[in-house]
Amino acid sequence: MPIHIDIDELVDRARDGQQRAVARLISLVEDAHPQLREVAKALTPYTGNAQIVGLTGPPGVGKSTSTSALLSALRKEGKRVGVLAIDPSSPFSGGALLGDRIRMTEHTTDIGVFIRSMATRGHLGGLAWATPQAVRVLDAAGFDVVLIETVGVGQSEVDVVKLADTTVLLLAPGMGDGIQAAKAGVLEIADVFVVNKADREGAETTVHDLKQMISFGRKEIRDHSWRQPIVRTVASTGEGVDDVLRALAEHREWLDKHGELVRRRVARAVSEVEAIALHRLRAELSHLRGGEELTALAKQVVDRELDPYTAAEKLIGDLKA
Amino acid sequence: MPIHIDIDELVDRARDGQQRAVARLISLVEDAHPQLREVAKALTPYTGNAQIVGLTGPPGVGKSTSTSALLSALRKEGKRVGVLAIDPSSPFSGGALLGDRIRMTEHTTDIGVFIRSMATRGHLGGLAWATPQAVRVLDAAGFDVVLIETVGVGQSEVDVVKLADTTVLLLAPGMGDGIQAAKAGVLEIADVFVVNKADREGAETTVHDLKQMISFGRKEIRDHSWRQPIVRTVASTGEGVDDVLRALAEHREWLDKHGELVRRRVARAVSEVEAIALHRLRAELSHLRGGEELTALAKQVVDRELDPYTAAEKLIGDLKA
Repeated sequence: MPIHIDIDELVDRARDGQQRAVARLISLVEDAHPQLREVAKALTPYTGNAQIVGLTGPPGVGKSTSTSALLSALRKEGKRVGVLAIDPSSPFSGGALLGDRIRMTEHTTDIGVFIRSMATRGHLGGLAWATPQAVRVLDAAGFDVVLIETVGVGQSEVDVVKLADTTVLLLAPGMGDGIQAAKAGVLEIADVFVVNKADREGAETTVHDLKQMISFGRKEIRDHSWRQPIVRTVASTGEGVDDVLRALAEHREWLDKHGELVRRRVARAVSEVEAIALHRLRAELSHLRGGEELTALAKQVVDRELDPYTAAEKLIGDLKA
Repeated sequence: MPIHIDIDELVDRARDGQQRAVARLISLVEDAHPQLREVAKALTPYTGNAQIVGLTGPPGVGKSTSTSALLSALRKEGKRVGVLAIDPSSPFSGGALLGDRIRMTEHTTDIGVFIRSMATRGHLGGLAWATPQAVRVLDAAGFDVVLIETVGVGQSEVDVVKLADTTVLLLAPGMGDGIQAAKAGVLEIADVFVVNKADREGAETTVHDLKQMISFGRKEIRDHSWRQPIVRTVASTGEGVDDVLRALAEHREWLDKHGELVRRRVARAVSEVEAIALHRLRAELSHLRGGEELTALAKQVVDRELDPYTAAEKLIGDLKA
């Protein structure tokens, strides 16, 4: 039996700048705590103020260094920043990302910064379901900017980035093939391009290739007035980071002006509500007839008495009954 | 309006060994064709005979070469083999896997072999939903063995491997860190370990490390009588591949003897039926009130009139109404 938590008090403390209260609220969300809905209700009045920025790009472009540099620059402007780092939870990787997190420890003593890794491991649509809730926690806790950083290895990560108001795609020189491969899925979701490690050989080629691809793709994938800027940075020295902030501010302004901010946020809420509903429906399916219904139907499928579609139909019929 | 297809005739042709009919049936499944349920019904009487083998492992261990070598060895035994290669569809990768597929062209003129790549890109749980159906097609078409090969980069791939009767984990020398990282998620799903590139330096260290981890993990994660064998191979020359076949046959025998085969297949059918039901429910949610319901609720969430949980509850209420 879980202990009952005073959610309103927890939200008050989070809004008061207490890191542990923020961490606790995100944990409640991640763990699908029984008081989850109470959490969402308590947060709702305070949401809608943060700027949600997604950061993605292929491995090796310096995403963590860039996130860290952006954090520092935003802090200098007096902004409070929350970071959600989405781990793909590959059973075969793991080390690198942890190292990345450790590099960010310079920020951990700063109460204007909150950093949290979120794992994609787990139930169907787990990340799609938990990430918007975690964003909601940081938003309600008064963070001015929420950065969602993904390692960009799968569709679910791209989906998460789609939840942002503004999406930044990081690239680096010498990844020409990477850009080519990235073309299909990613050009259309990027609002701002950043070519990091711009002091290295090949940076101008990368910018050039990117420009060509943008102009090629623009007609098909964009028919509005935002022209995706390409910003050069050297995240390790902080060079160009102010230009990224400027691009973010300009994009935010553009979003507001064209009603695109509301449109994106409604799309985000559609995903969020849908994910919560599906999560709930999945639980209901598993519990039909004391949890026996689904297994009984599965046995009939294995015994060739029933095809899986008819079985699914019966299951839905019982759910609605 | 899609053309109506004579499914029974298509299934007959697939069972008759016609590759194009098999390919067509899998496409119908992948594209969620309106006659999907008819396909499942027509296949059901012929299912349950194939041995379903999952192959996974970190990048660079020689998964494609191993799949190809296994294919050749199984063909020599006169077995018909279907291969489903699961692509992770990273927006940032792409090239390598295509190359791997091309290496398998030596088998493409052999009608006892069918090879198909399946992309994970797409809707929520898309792969979880389409893969078992594709397995069903190959099973019903009379393939003796169905190999599901994944590149092993995410939870969804691990989930797919869980759908197999027998799961083979491939490793290679010089990937000590990889093994460590793999420990948590993968040791428990592997029935057979293969150390490929066993002629290379460090192979014995890999076998040794693996043995240690198995003996360490065994108590916690396995309390039945199957002892996971470790087989050494050099897939590029075919060395040791017969030992893999022997391990597969022994595991199959063990599965039968302990009622584990039925248990695994029921678990698979549970996932399958659940995925179909959720897919259907998702579509129903999206279409409530002519598709307006979900968006209207999302707008209320953005306007802070409703928390997303209450919105999801309303949505479910309308679904059941």
